[in-house]
Amino acid sequence: MAEAKVYRASTTAPVNIAVVKYWGKRDAKLNLPTNSSLSVTLSQADLRTLTTASCSSSYSATEDSLILNGSPSDITGARTQACFRALRSRRSALEAADASLPKLSAMPLRIVSENNFPTAAGLASSAAGFAALVRAVANLYELPDSPAELSLIARQGSGSACRSLFGGYVAWRMGDKEDGSDSLADLVAEASHWPEMRALILVASAAKKGVSSTSGMQQTVATSGLFKQRITEVVPKNMELMEKAVQAKDFASFAEVTMRDSNSFHATCADTYPPIFYMNDVSRAAVRAVEKINEAAGQTIAAYTFDAGPNCVVYYLEKDEAAVVGTFYKVLGSEVGGWKESAAAHATDISVEEPLAEVLKTGVSRVIMTGVGEGPQKTDEYLVTESGEVVQR
Amino acid sequence: MAEAKVYRASTTAPVNIAVVKYWGKRDAKLNLPTNSSLSVTLSQADLRTLTTASCSSSYSATEDSLILNGSPSDITGARTQACFRALRSRRSALEAADASLPKLSAMPLRIVSENNFPTAAGLASSAAGFAALVRAVANLYELPDSPAELSLIARQGSGSACRSLFGGYVAWRMGDKEDGSDSLADLVAEASHWPEMRALILVASAAKKGVSSTSGMQQTVATSGLFKQRITEVVPKNMELMEKAVQAKDFASFAEVTMRDSNSFHATCADTYPPIFYMNDVSRAAVRAVEKINEAAGQTIAAYTFDAGPNCVVYYLEKDEAAVVGTFYKVLGSEVGGWKESAAAHATDISVEEPLAEVLKTGVSRVIMTGVGEGPQKTDEYLVTESGEVVQR
Repeated sequence: MAEAKVYRASTTAPVNIAVVKYWGKRDAKLNLPTNSSLSVTLSQADLRTLTTASCSSSYSATEDSLILNGSPSDITGARTQACFRALRSRRSALEAADASLPKLSAMPLRIVSENNFPTAAGLASSAAGFAALVRAVANLYELPDSPAELSLIARQGSGSACRSLFGGYVAWRMGDKEDGSDSLADLVAEASHWPEMRALILVASAAKKGVSSTSGMQQTVATSGLFKQRITEVVPKNMELMEKAVQAKDFASFAEVTMRDSNSFHATCADTYPPIFYMNDVSRAAVRAVEKINEAAGQTIAAYTFDAGPNCVVYYLEKDEAAVVGTFYKVLGSEVGGWKESAAAHATDISVEEPLAEVLKTGVSRVIMTGVGEGPQKTDEYLVTESGEVVQR
Repeated sequence: MAEAKVYRASTTAPVNIAVVKYWGKRDAKLNLPTNSSLSVTLSQADLRTLTTASCSSSYSATEDSLILNGSPSDITGARTQACFRALRSRRSALEAADASLPKLSAMPLRIVSENNFPTAAGLASSAAGFAALVRAVANLYELPDSPAELSLIARQGSGSACRSLFGGYVAWRMGDKEDGSDSLADLVAEASHWPEMRALILVASAAKKGVSSTSGMQQTVATSGLFKQRITEVVPKNMELMEKAVQAKDFASFAEVTMRDSNSFHATCADTYPPIFYMNDVSRAAVRAVEKINEAAGQTIAAYTFDAGPNCVVYYLEKDEAAVVGTFYKVLGSEVGGWKESAAAHATDISVEEPLAEVLKTGVSRVIMTGVGEGPQKTDEYLVTESGEVVQR
């Protein structure tokens, strides 16, 4: 018999770093959050996941498979299975409505995925990963669903992944329905609305997480006496202020809310019992350095934020790169990897004194210079060949 | 003329370490707190302030003076002046009622004070200092006021000082009157009620405070979005649980509330804008070590708490000294100063792994082994001679 056709689709998907944090689930099975959140999608030129989804009746393995950064990845988890199930059922509906369509929903999926950044570095790789997986299979299945509709599926894989279905400035509306059908991503503003947004990521040397986000946030929900205040009063206020700041391109306000919300999030972690500490002395030195930069500039030109790890993400505007990047370059020096050419060129008279400088120098292993970017992009770069083999690199 | 008489009175006063923290003033002038607090008074054998109050018409200097640890101390501050004023007016009332009494209230005060521990170490020295000052002058003036009444005066010098007027387990009732007349210390239980309580203090190498408590707590009140929840819900609940735990001598409950309240307090500091960080990587390693000890013991036998600095105070019961002190001794070694003889004798199979052990070893400069103790004690040891000279040591 003739070799059965291999169907393929590839996409890239971005990382997003929240400026109003997601922390806490009201439904762990459906990944429904206790509060809305808002993030900036980062440029895929610097941080992206490339995923090829393929299927074929010729695939010997009868099960779906996922290869992540060269090694087989477990997909039996409820989260991943929920995504596959939702995508297949949508494809089946199309096939039922149009008999001429190939029965892709019945074929095993072979998915191959690659990050262009170290997965371990604690850079929200799961968000990009699940967004890419869902987007790639949706492309393969030629689903008509909008990014918002697909975000409902990605959310079940990894909560923050739903925000990576869009570029620019993205809100995840918590919704209030029990089935989660209204807990989805919502575009606040395109990247082109405020393209000057930049991010300098300081990757901390020992960026291994102590506590996984999933278990950590549930411990916080269960034990923090301060958490209720965060989700009922602090975050709703921050969401409102942040959306206004993005619409108005008001960086000072964007920055203050970003820093306050990061502080509030880590405060509820510290208030968890037993306490969860994601920030370390290096993280705190980065906070002080950002405060120093803003103080020296006489205005707020930089904002720190920390996810569930010690890495510091510093948001700033392109026009202030000399002051912000220049200051960190002066402290960390060229021996730290990741600088773009422009970094060395900057001259700034802002300086960070000891012992802060030493703590940063010894604690930051590399930097990533990036900025706001677009959402998932279809691509002709495939990680599975036309005949179905996994591309080896 | 004959040399005028020098009147003298000496007292010692203890340090106290809160297990439900005082953080936030509702009236900065009167030192009225936003919440009640509760502390354990520590033994004066290990930590105490010795203060001699004297007065004489022969004192050439017409102003009051205070010598602290050998050097003149500024007493022009509103806090200190408020204490002097309150004490003098009480003495004047006595003199007005009994003309035979010497007019001490009209004489300049010469006060000399000494701590038996480094003031800089961040060990609540101001609490012991103001408690001793108020108690010494009250003795000098032969005031009939009770410790609770004197605590109203000491509170105006330093909030937490009001709790050092008593030994044992002491509450500071926040009160609700505008004039602060009901914001005073209240004995929850004598030291003799639960004499087995011990404290191991791990003094961190760089124990210099970044932000003073006074300004820090007001920044928290003004900027933390989570603080309201702490003072309206978290602390009232902790006060109730803690008083029950002390009455019942229930260490497991005492320990959990102690740790949770310390976490909650530092969480509101981290939620302050800009954030206040008192705990560092050494503090966090101490938290993990205490968790390890409790885990290994299969029950809660140790509790960590942190004031406005990185020092860790570990509460435990005498019966568990081998496990608690023994474990820290194994980690820190005999080269760290402050161990009592018993420490070296303990054998424990509990061990703290790297990198925690290394962080503690390099970050802890000395330890203090102490326990619950008595309140201020009258003493015949004077720091001012009968002829009014300051005793030089």
